[in-house]
Amino acid sequence: MKKILGTTLLLLGMTVFGQSKEDSIQFSKISLEVLNNGKGYNELRELTKNIGHRLSGSEAYEKSVKWAEQKLRDAGANKVWLQEVMIPVWVRGKESLHIKTSNGSWKSLKMLSLGNSEGTNGKDVSGEIIMVKSMDEYNKLTAEQVKDKILFFNYAFKQSFIETFKGYGDAAKYRTTAASLTAKKGGKFAIIRSLSSAFDDVPHTGAMRYEENTSKIPAVAIGSTTADELEALLKNQKITAKLNSNCGMKGEKLSHSVIGEITGKKDQSVIVVGGHLDSWDVGEGAHDDGAGIVQSIEVLRTFKKLGIQNNHTIRVVCFANEENGVKGGIQYGKFVKENNEKHLFAIESDAGGFAPRGIALDMDQTKRKQIQSWSKLFLPYGVYNFEEQFSGTDLYPLHDMGIPAAELMPDSQRYFDIHHTEEDTFEKVNRRELLLGAITMTQIIYMIDKNW
Amino acid sequence: MKKILGTTLLLLGMTVFGQSKEDSIQFSKISLEVLNNGKGYNELRELTKNIGHRLSGSEAYEKSVKWAEQKLRDAGANKVWLQEVMIPVWVRGKESLHIKTSNGSWKSLKMLSLGNSEGTNGKDVSGEIIMVKSMDEYNKLTAEQVKDKILFFNYAFKQSFIETFKGYGDAAKYRTTAASLTAKKGGKFAIIRSLSSAFDDVPHTGAMRYEENTSKIPAVAIGSTTADELEALLKNQKITAKLNSNCGMKGEKLSHSVIGEITGKKDQSVIVVGGHLDSWDVGEGAHDDGAGIVQSIEVLRTFKKLGIQNNHTIRVVCFANEENGVKGGIQYGKFVKENNEKHLFAIESDAGGFAPRGIALDMDQTKRKQIQSWSKLFLPYGVYNFEEQFSGTDLYPLHDMGIPAAELMPDSQRYFDIHHTEEDTFEKVNRRELLLGAITMTQIIYMIDKNW
Repeated sequence: MKKILGTTLLLLGMTVFGQSKEDSIQFSKISLEVLNNGKGYNELRELTKNIGHRLSGSEAYEKSVKWAEQKLRDAGANKVWLQEVMIPVWVRGKESLHIKTSNGSWKSLKMLSLGNSEGTNGKDVSGEIIMVKSMDEYNKLTAEQVKDKILFFNYAFKQSFIETFKGYGDAAKYRTTAASLTAKKGGKFAIIRSLSSAFDDVPHTGAMRYEENTSKIPAVAIGSTTADELEALLKNQKITAKLNSNCGMKGEKLSHSVIGEITGKKDQSVIVVGGHLDSWDVGEGAHDDGAGIVQSIEVLRTFKKLGIQNNHTIRVVCFANEENGVKGGIQYGKFVKENNEKHLFAIESDAGGFAPRGIALDMDQTKRKQIQSWSKLFLPYGVYNFEEQFSGTDLYPLHDMGIPAAELMPDSQRYFDIHHTEEDTFEKVNRRELLLGAITMTQIIYMIDKNW
Repeated sequence: MKKILGTTLLLLGMTVFGQSKEDSIQFSKISLEVLNNGKGYNELRELTKNIGHRLSGSEAYEKSVKWAEQKLRDAGANKVWLQEVMIPVWVRGKESLHIKTSNGSWKSLKMLSLGNSEGTNGKDVSGEIIMVKSMDEYNKLTAEQVKDKILFFNYAFKQSFIETFKGYGDAAKYRTTAASLTAKKGGKFAIIRSLSSAFDDVPHTGAMRYEENTSKIPAVAIGSTTADELEALLKNQKITAKLNSNCGMKGEKLSHSVIGEITGKKDQSVIVVGGHLDSWDVGEGAHDDGAGIVQSIEVLRTFKKLGIQNNHTIRVVCFANEENGVKGGIQYGKFVKENNEKHLFAIESDAGGFAPRGIALDMDQTKRKQIQSWSKLFLPYGVYNFEEQFSGTDLYPLHDMGIPAAELMPDSQRYFDIHHTEEDTFEKVNRRELLLGAITMTQIIYMIDKNW
């Protein structure tokens, strides 16, 4: 047995080596093609500079649908189509936040209403600020203490995690729940310290939600240094805050996700690569998630350009409405179920266009292990981490159907400095970093297409 | 034998595991301290904004010497001293480059004289431009063809390498040799396409050198898009270039490297951590190499702050004159030899303040393997690459004396967009990325100090 095992391992080793060499040559071709001829960076310039931010329901979003349709055709998709999605429409409108010290005059603070928040209908709403720095401190407040007040949740983004997504996950509950928590104790509106890894005055928006049977009061975010200044002021005096805002939900609307594919030569089971086409209504949605869109299109273009004969259908999905509803992802999941389409694998890029470090794998252990066994092929490209287990937000419906799902893991250090802000612009994206992400996604899809 | 080996390995395994746990706790303490309380980012702001760029021989460099001395004291060094270094003095002065098409008027090009280059002594020097795109093309030119002409070396930085340092290494000979190559065939001056990974009009300076017995004619750099435009113009017409510059070497001067240390508790053998204090005379020398300086000071501060009892002397060296002479590094090597100081290990950070990915190890295989055996401790910090074999430029004299030398390897994607340019400013440095580099250096020095 021992002898036989030895021989088997040797043969296996040789086969793996032979395959591995062929694959490593293909990896190199993919890399050369994208680094030398990749169009993703210029396409991102078009998307961000010609269209700009593109919240679901906006005219800009509809422009981006047409743009993505054209880009997928240009990249060589043999089938391009729009998938109908009913999306929520949230509109910001004019907004302002002022504070006044005991003896002072009103001072304007840089702020953003949180996404999906109701506003004040253009009226001034004011009250005294009470600050809490944690959920514990919130829990200790009585309804009497909070009644008619403004609750300021000043929870600082934890710098101590190496992966900033952990800091984001840790602080996210303050954004999602601040309004309802404040309403439950009779407060007028909520202010949160932005979910930001930066020390600046830039406010970060992002989705919040209302608990059922709780009054829908406004929630707004302020930047880190503004929060620090407010905290300092509150040490020795009462501060009044005054909010005037017009934001709110304006029903639903028919919109679209954009889909383009190159049909499989062997069968029509599907491999999905995607990002989300919508963005928040500030900045340019460059890292979040213009990057994921142009990287996904680059994957398709690279397959065509290199003449790789894909066994299975490679499908780019530009999801609608990730930011404030995930309706595009949900609709796509429904479509797959209704049409009983076989899906082999789905990967999303929605963590910024930074240099890739790994691929998170959300699937059964056998498939995880198989992908992990390919990891040495990725190492020369700076991609080494295949240990994390999650996938892109838009892919959860697929994951719930048992489809192996994944997410590109770029370096996370800079993302939450600019995430959901006016600073998420094209200028913050580095061409090489962006393209390296597209290379990683093309390489993993090449491996899946060949081996599954 | 087999049984014994098994038992030995088991015991070894247990020991390693126990040590490993203690080390991983210490790694975590280092990381928490630096990410939460690190001063490197604010110190870099001081160095770049209050002092700015600081070429050897400039008043700004002398200011930075005083600044570094103070910062080392503040960080807790029990001994701070200046090491005398004779440095070359190169001065830029005013400079301009113009081109004229066959029928056109003069047009100014954005340019920088290369470091150490002689100028035109304030006089206009002009001639027809001849372009070559490679050394091969240069070699084919006759002296007759080049006589009294301007040679334009339009060799493009190769985008195809994953590590941009390879692209830099590949293109560097054009910068260092363009002037002498041009002079040898009777040309008047040389223009090079900048060693840049970016597609912009920003010129990159950097050191050039003259071959002996070759006339010292000027060499200047232009940005990538300027080079492309010039190439396009040259396709269908003759172009004249006119240079007027005042740069040149102005002899030597006494200056200093700055050194601070915490003396070893067990012995006084030395572990060096350093960067170079000088920079080119454009931008702010933020990534190159203010980052390495503040990271090195952060290492010392972190040892003191956490109360780690260092066995050996931990010495921060802020080297003088890396950019155009390496006189600080050479002088330090001499000092070590003359004083017969035992050095255990030396590491430099001089590849930008970006998120670390590895440590290059230039030492014998036994020591390399030992450090590589620690690699799992570094993995949670995104540091996985211990395979490269080189060390910091300032450390070559130590390496040549047989001292184990190393260099921090940050992500290289953005470095050559801004290297040696007006764009190398504080704003291009991310706080977390910078501090992660300091964490990696503190961690490796902790391991070396404990185990060697």
